[in-house]
Amino acid sequence: MAANNINNNASILESGQESNGIIQALLTDQYQITMAYAYWKSRRTDSRAVFDLFFRRNPFRGEFTIFAGLQECLRFLKNFRYTDSDIAFLRTVLPPTTERGFFDYLSALNCSAIQLYAIDEGSVVFPRVPLLRIEGPLPLVQLLETTLLNLINYASLVATNAARFRLASGPNKQLLEFGLRRAQGPDGGLSASKYSYIGGFDATSNVLAGKLYNIPLRGTNAHSLVMSFRSIDDLKNKMLQPKDATSDPIDLAASSLAWLDKVCQLLDLRDTNEGELASFIAYAVAFPQGFLVLVDTYDVLKSGVANFCAVSLALNDIGYKAVGVRIDSGDLAYQSLEIRKIFERVAQEFGLPWFCDVTIVASNDINEETLHSLQQQGNSIDAFGIGTHLVTCQKQPALGCVFKLVQIDDEPRIKLSHDIEKVTIPGRKTAYRLYGSDGLAIADLMAQPSETSPEAQKVVLCRHPFEALTRVNVRPTKVDKLHKLYMKDGEICQPLPTLSEVRDNVKRSMQTLRSDVKRELNPTPYKVSVTSNLYHFLHDLWQESLPVGQLS
Amino acid sequence: MAANNINNNASILESGQESNGIIQALLTDQYQITMAYAYWKSRRTDSRAVFDLFFRRNPFRGEFTIFAGLQECLRFLKNFRYTDSDIAFLRTVLPPTTERGFFDYLSALNCSAIQLYAIDEGSVVFPRVPLLRIEGPLPLVQLLETTLLNLINYASLVATNAARFRLASGPNKQLLEFGLRRAQGPDGGLSASKYSYIGGFDATSNVLAGKLYNIPLRGTNAHSLVMSFRSIDDLKNKMLQPKDATSDPIDLAASSLAWLDKVCQLLDLRDTNEGELASFIAYAVAFPQGFLVLVDTYDVLKSGVANFCAVSLALNDIGYKAVGVRIDSGDLAYQSLEIRKIFERVAQEFGLPWFCDVTIVASNDINEETLHSLQQQGNSIDAFGIGTHLVTCQKQPALGCVFKLVQIDDEPRIKLSHDIEKVTIPGRKTAYRLYGSDGLAIADLMAQPSETSPEAQKVVLCRHPFEALTRVNVRPTKVDKLHKLYMKDGEICQPLPTLSEVRDNVKRSMQTLRSDVKRELNPTPYKVSVTSNLYHFLHDLWQESLPVGQLS
Repeated sequence: MAANNINNNASILESGQESNGIIQALLTDQYQITMAYAYWKSRRTDSRAVFDLFFRRNPFRGEFTIFAGLQECLRFLKNFRYTDSDIAFLRTVLPPTTERGFFDYLSALNCSAIQLYAIDEGSVVFPRVPLLRIEGPLPLVQLLETTLLNLINYASLVATNAARFRLASGPNKQLLEFGLRRAQGPDGGLSASKYSYIGGFDATSNVLAGKLYNIPLRGTNAHSLVMSFRSIDDLKNKMLQPKDATSDPIDLAASSLAWLDKVCQLLDLRDTNEGELASFIAYAVAFPQGFLVLVDTYDVLKSGVANFCAVSLALNDIGYKAVGVRIDSGDLAYQSLEIRKIFERVAQEFGLPWFCDVTIVASNDINEETLHSLQQQGNSIDAFGIGTHLVTCQKQPALGCVFKLVQIDDEPRIKLSHDIEKVTIPGRKTAYRLYGSDGLAIADLMAQPSETSPEAQKVVLCRHPFEALTRVNVRPTKVDKLHKLYMKDGEICQPLPTLSEVRDNVKRSMQTLRSDVKRELNPTPYKVSVTSNLYHFLHDLWQESLPVGQLS
Repeated sequence: MAANNINNNASILESGQESNGIIQALLTDQYQITMAYAYWKSRRTDSRAVFDLFFRRNPFRGEFTIFAGLQECLRFLKNFRYTDSDIAFLRTVLPPTTERGFFDYLSALNCSAIQLYAIDEGSVVFPRVPLLRIEGPLPLVQLLETTLLNLINYASLVATNAARFRLASGPNKQLLEFGLRRAQGPDGGLSASKYSYIGGFDATSNVLAGKLYNIPLRGTNAHSLVMSFRSIDDLKNKMLQPKDATSDPIDLAASSLAWLDKVCQLLDLRDTNEGELASFIAYAVAFPQGFLVLVDTYDVLKSGVANFCAVSLALNDIGYKAVGVRIDSGDLAYQSLEIRKIFERVAQEFGLPWFCDVTIVASNDINEETLHSLQQQGNSIDAFGIGTHLVTCQKQPALGCVFKLVQIDDEPRIKLSHDIEKVTIPGRKTAYRLYGSDGLAIADLMAQPSETSPEAQKVVLCRHPFEALTRVNVRPTKVDKLHKLYMKDGEICQPLPTLSEVRDNVKRSMQTLRSDVKRELNPTPYKVSVTSNLYHFLHDLWQESLPVGQLS
């Protein structure tokens, strides 16, 4: 195949030559604007608000999530402003009675009063622990909500999905993202390529993602190339220079046809599709060092693989090693094993040991379950091309991140609900991850900022935030603080990792998770806990906030 | 609520102030580029190819699909070119042996040799009937595949989903798209707003969609506004000018508190949440003519609705009519009925008949099934705010449009498959829709272009493309030709409808469908047929194309 670009020096932010103009201040819900006006009218523009962005449940019936989208959020915050044209539009949206001063306020808004705390992008994260904590003037932080949720929800969902596909395939298979055509819109496709790579994929078919993010590219041919040829006579260019460029070009068609006779004899075949053979020769003439073709246009075992072997043997005569085949239909496990047998017979018959290991790529509606099942059945597939299920996250196409007010002007706020899952944990929280002596994560622990940090080798009580009797004493071997200040007064104040570094973080972070938390079937929930202090703070505030009507 | 913009004069294409820079020539799969090089190397750049874009199955276990995305495709084609930076990137992707002439070829490419036939955007469409037929030089048409699929797949999927939600809700409920935060990326959200509107939604919360496409906007407030107030003392601005601007501003807080006493007495409540009341007053001061608030932050029936009624009555005193309430949790049907009863009691008690009809908006994870179930249970909801399920199409997050070569240099091509669903119908096809005397569509009929058109009142035989014995004689009352030439030599050659016109087309087109085809449970498949001529052409070619190996 074509060359890859794996040197990846730019951070996601800096590499953003991408001009996705639609990530802008107006990409928000109208109620943010109306609420901002209500705050402004109530003279609350100087109220300092603290909002948490978090999710309540891991996706895909799993027990972990990969956090992604942070750098896009930072870029959005850095560029946040309303243009004159935005303001002119908002004047038509809000009622004519809206005071002029509000539009002046909006015109002057930017994020210079924003502080953003975040977990590192690419970390494994869990329900209730804030991914972001944003502090700033109440109306401004409110105005940021929808866009931040939009940028994080899908990024994290796809990265998580990709990490699950990686778990299902094991570490040694190549995973290729092929989903652009089925993605939910253009940047549904582009984001999928980026965040699948972060989550553990090796390459993408999406050329723009290759250009913008330096993600390795993969791609060969489709049925249309094969179908566009009917016979050897359609070939207008059959000549190929041997790899050792000293000798003259040879007629690859003549050579392939000669080899085809031998291959058909070996495999006891009478004939193969001639158009398919012609298309393979055309492709080999174009990519003699990247000869990997789709072999299931007509019949994989009776035509495609034999044609592939014939052209590969012809290429071999002049110094080129074929790369592989792709199958895109039928029983992938069975076919891959049969194809491997053919490769082995060819390798033996013609004395080419390397031919045993020619790559077999499989695609065709592969999902996480397919990967598990292929693993169980046994197969000889080296690489999977995965599209629809990966990029649209068919198993669960949305992550439910929310953005909740937890403090205002130094007063904590709690959101009550009959549904206990929807009760929020009030106030600013410091979050820690506690590790055991085996290097594996034991629990996340949220505390009030005023509390002293838990320390390695010292016992700390970890309580379930809502279940009074669920608690455990933990003596961690290592304690990590989860949040860093990423934006201070509107300026990014952390070095931003490159895409590869984020990808490495996913890998490293996933390795700290116990395998029973990661498994597909009935995974064990990871512990997300609060300190005793925070527990009492939460429950005292809860009690205070109960409406009198509910006590009666 | 805020004012709406429903005058919609620009076509989707012209209104595209949207600068979604990522819809560009490189937003494609790498194999399109490698295939293009193989075609170029084989000197097939002048081969004239015909590709069909179609889908094989309707989404959502339904029997119809709405076609959308055409204008975005036209815009893409019109702007199609490789920039110098694209070419520079492609040089790094393709092997060093790639000939320079190929890059010169790519640099000079545009769509001036492209003809595009399409069904009108917003039409009801069915499996196998091409949505687009594209004709042009083989490598060029190949290079367009992925982007066209990307632009049509999601647009059509969301439009179809929206049309199904509209069917489920009935014609009289307001449907509001609230999905931006959960959409698959920024333009997943933007496209969802646009295509939900086309499919039958009335408005969106997405401000950018309002700006770019003139879609009516809706939005009120979130829990955070309510939670940001704790008491009446937090209100820094309680004064409101009566609607009849001749009299002095009144203290809306004092007036609301006075009314709250009466409302609590009427409803036998002791107390309501004071912060919530304060937030409602703040919102009413900002939007006295658009007073619609979320009433479920604390307790819908014991706090939210009473507070809403108190503020509404205070507003009424000075000439303003409240708009409504939104509920976002719990049993929506039950709550809406209880809320309506309260509105009716208030209306009667205080002599305000209009108060019976105050709007009730419901949101909270609503899907198509919820709408059907709410309909069956009985409810008093006037408007639904729908997010995640609509925009991510949770029930089926991808439409499987494909792009298949059907003819090359006047030779038809057929793709065979063991899976009969995947066999393609070769050659150019003219497609007709046949209507009965009741104005309802009977069947779609594909014919060879050389055949004479079916005519009204004349019997025509409609055959299933693959089942020899499935055929029916139809005497249509009306015959419509489905495809128009939309792009001739790279120029758009049809007047393009506005977004509202496309929306009207959906409505009109849906009305021509029999209700049993549209129903949710076990819908009747619509007939997609071929003429006898095309049937024989297809099956003769099929037989010719069978590989010899398969006959043995």
